[in-house]
Amino acid sequence: MSYLEKFDQAVGLSKPAADALSKLFGSRFQTAQAVRDHHGRDESPYPLMAPDAVVHAHSTEEVSALMKLASAHRFPVIPYGAGSSVEGQILAIRGGISLDLSQMDQVIEVHADDMTATVQAGVRRLALNESVRHAGLFFPVDPGADATVGGMCATRASGTNAVRYGTMRENVLAMTVVLADGRVLKVGTRARKSSAGYDLTRLLIGSEGTLGVITEVTLRLHPLPMAVSAAVCTFPSVQHAVQTAIEIMQSGIPIARCELLDANAVKAVNRHDRLQLREAPMLLMEFHGSESGVHEQAELVETLAQDNGGSAFDWATAPEDRSRLWTARHHAYLAALQTRPGCRSVTTDACVPISELAHNIDAAVSDADAAGIPYFIVGHVGDGNFHVGYLIDPDSQHERDQAERLSHDLVKRAIACAGTCTGEHGIGLHKMEFLIEETGDDAVSVMAAVKRALDPLDLLNPGKIFVGA
Amino acid sequence: MSYLEKFDQAVGLSKPAADALSKLFGSRFQTAQAVRDHHGRDESPYPLMAPDAVVHAHSTEEVSALMKLASAHRFPVIPYGAGSSVEGQILAIRGGISLDLSQMDQVIEVHADDMTATVQAGVRRLALNESVRHAGLFFPVDPGADATVGGMCATRASGTNAVRYGTMRENVLAMTVVLADGRVLKVGTRARKSSAGYDLTRLLIGSEGTLGVITEVTLRLHPLPMAVSAAVCTFPSVQHAVQTAIEIMQSGIPIARCELLDANAVKAVNRHDRLQLREAPMLLMEFHGSESGVHEQAELVETLAQDNGGSAFDWATAPEDRSRLWTARHHAYLAALQTRPGCRSVTTDACVPISELAHNIDAAVSDADAAGIPYFIVGHVGDGNFHVGYLIDPDSQHERDQAERLSHDLVKRAIACAGTCTGEHGIGLHKMEFLIEETGDDAVSVMAAVKRALDPLDLLNPGKIFVGA
Repeated sequence: MSYLEKFDQAVGLSKPAADALSKLFGSRFQTAQAVRDHHGRDESPYPLMAPDAVVHAHSTEEVSALMKLASAHRFPVIPYGAGSSVEGQILAIRGGISLDLSQMDQVIEVHADDMTATVQAGVRRLALNESVRHAGLFFPVDPGADATVGGMCATRASGTNAVRYGTMRENVLAMTVVLADGRVLKVGTRARKSSAGYDLTRLLIGSEGTLGVITEVTLRLHPLPMAVSAAVCTFPSVQHAVQTAIEIMQSGIPIARCELLDANAVKAVNRHDRLQLREAPMLLMEFHGSESGVHEQAELVETLAQDNGGSAFDWATAPEDRSRLWTARHHAYLAALQTRPGCRSVTTDACVPISELAHNIDAAVSDADAAGIPYFIVGHVGDGNFHVGYLIDPDSQHERDQAERLSHDLVKRAIACAGTCTGEHGIGLHKMEFLIEETGDDAVSVMAAVKRALDPLDLLNPGKIFVGA
Repeated sequence: MSYLEKFDQAVGLSKPAADALSKLFGSRFQTAQAVRDHHGRDESPYPLMAPDAVVHAHSTEEVSALMKLASAHRFPVIPYGAGSSVEGQILAIRGGISLDLSQMDQVIEVHADDMTATVQAGVRRLALNESVRHAGLFFPVDPGADATVGGMCATRASGTNAVRYGTMRENVLAMTVVLADGRVLKVGTRARKSSAGYDLTRLLIGSEGTLGVITEVTLRLHPLPMAVSAAVCTFPSVQHAVQTAIEIMQSGIPIARCELLDANAVKAVNRHDRLQLREAPMLLMEFHGSESGVHEQAELVETLAQDNGGSAFDWATAPEDRSRLWTARHHAYLAALQTRPGCRSVTTDACVPISELAHNIDAAVSDADAAGIPYFIVGHVGDGNFHVGYLIDPDSQHERDQAERLSHDLVKRAIACAGTCTGEHGIGLHKMEFLIEETGDDAVSVMAAVKRALDPLDLLNPGKIFVGA
């Protein structure tokens, strides 16, 4: 595949549009090359595709005014949070404005009694957790990067806690959204559930900036568990580790985190975070509950692990030890990139029914080994979600082709066993063909019909998820 | 309000359409008055509004063929499951066909290893649970009626277990859906999570038959808990009971069920199910987990209850005692109807943030007492969801007006504190104006735009949720 050759050319920003934006946003309307370049690339291996200009918005009203200008002047608008998407979501394939929401970073209100927080879309997940910890609460969704809440909504993000606490799908109660024509919607309420009409909240979660600009989000928080315990266990093979994860899930143990790292990932993490983990396939687990509940869960899991050849079952009950382990886990992606200087990662994101996980990962390992391409594997295996990162030289057409072929084969296997091509990263530019393979032309045409209904001028992040809205 | 005066007149079914249907469905195309009448009324207080004919479908292909006929001949189609909706969802306000899916009642496959089941839309919840129990699994969503899975999807149903296990929103993985033009979509996968494009699954859940006909559903099952314990506790007032529920939730206790019954509901249930429960405001609770986990949860809850004046904290650990209690709870609605022969219930369904629950219920009680109208209250109070059933003589305009006024005041209070007019029953005919009050004209117009995009001829359950698609 020749990257980006299939995409349209940028349409550019007209002089009157630029003048109007400059008048409205002053110095927060920026066209400097460095700023544009910073907004024209994410964590995907795609080359730079810069917007014509960048706008930093400070309020829902400003976003609404911007969208009215976009409607009048017909320029694309790409919502931008932390730039940590991995499928090319934020690339300006048709030019236009990168709408940076990162300065909308206020926690608006925390209702500790109701365990909800309402935040601006630019709040990042670590800052959010910092701001609610004093109330004995936390927000569980934790993608690898310190992403913004708005971006996490847009890609339907999850992370290491999803096996117990769910993804953004389950943890967003309400949102303020600006439509393509500038209208401001409030969708959802602070109630835990609702049957009031179409679920516009869930429609917008995972819409990758194509249906509306999310400016405020009301989140469901969770009580910090009374007791927490983390454990590390290494296995003779990836398969043994995965089999253990499958048995944990099938036993109904309410495990809070259940992460797989292959030996390559452990090696990378050891080097990056100066750890001394045994460099073998590993499960990194966490248990939440009461003191006795955590103890009970851990005992059951230790037995299952030992029956699958698990050894070196190590406990980390001290908060600083746990924190070091999970920080290392969150660094795995960056740590792996550093094992091959200058590389980019083509990262798969398949998610399959749990009983299909072992053979899917096994086939991926065999294929990657046979291809001789450097790779690492991490997985939220309790959910059936795993990432193979193929570490390629982005300048090598051969390596790009090889990684794409491996990735496509992996996706085909996942789809064949009723899984999905993406558990948490979204479609972006990269998985548009996979989406059609997974759900069919008709379902994608329904998505496109919804897009046309909400954004008839195709202004919002055009050309993502599907072509030809 | 004069019931139904605002609705359009039925358009009738043309002779060519009737002939085509008769040819396609033979004796499963029925126009007998008794059959039509049976399909023209639900559990709402609305008078009969019968369809022109009833079709019993046996397959997705038949539903597709029916929708193609509907497109060609322009007649409305109203999907019908068990007829247990409570907001007038299935009334044929514009005539057309009632599409009865109750004979599509096959459990297609159970993947015990993955804890999923794929069923036809006409499978009922009790039959579903019967068919997966041998695998040590259960499906938690339990609306009062023995509804069909398709109907439960269509209204985004929940019930007594939602506080721990979620609603249909969280427990549906995939669906087969027939669109208005007869195309068949498969949405979702058997993976636990996905970020693959717009969440059409969640868009269809809660769409009340207006966007597509759900013919098959893949559900997420849960392991039967190792230990279960139920408890009944009575309180000096509804407020004391609600305060206890609030504190349980705020403590993070993973309670599986937390139901409120007011003294009127307890009285009705005692009579209907020959029980001897103390006729006072009551919490009916259930705990799931390991033996020790259940014990621990129950101890914490007993302490909280006692601090709020709770007495007679009775345990039901024997399965038959628990079953008797929960069966009685599920009969509460019918039991209440029997306290006033010939009555219908105008049933509210507000759901509010948990900290707002006490004052909302308190105000509802005061208003109902002041009005002197017979009523009962049941509530999934762990979720902030409560139902006041006003038991009216359907022939009395005065009582209907009175109940609607009380209901509207109750909804206004719920919306004012960031709650919703419906936690689990949906909008139907009854709450269309409340939906606008809750989410605003713009959000409802976006819903209507989505409807037009998917069903441009307005064939599927027209005139429900919002007017003027």
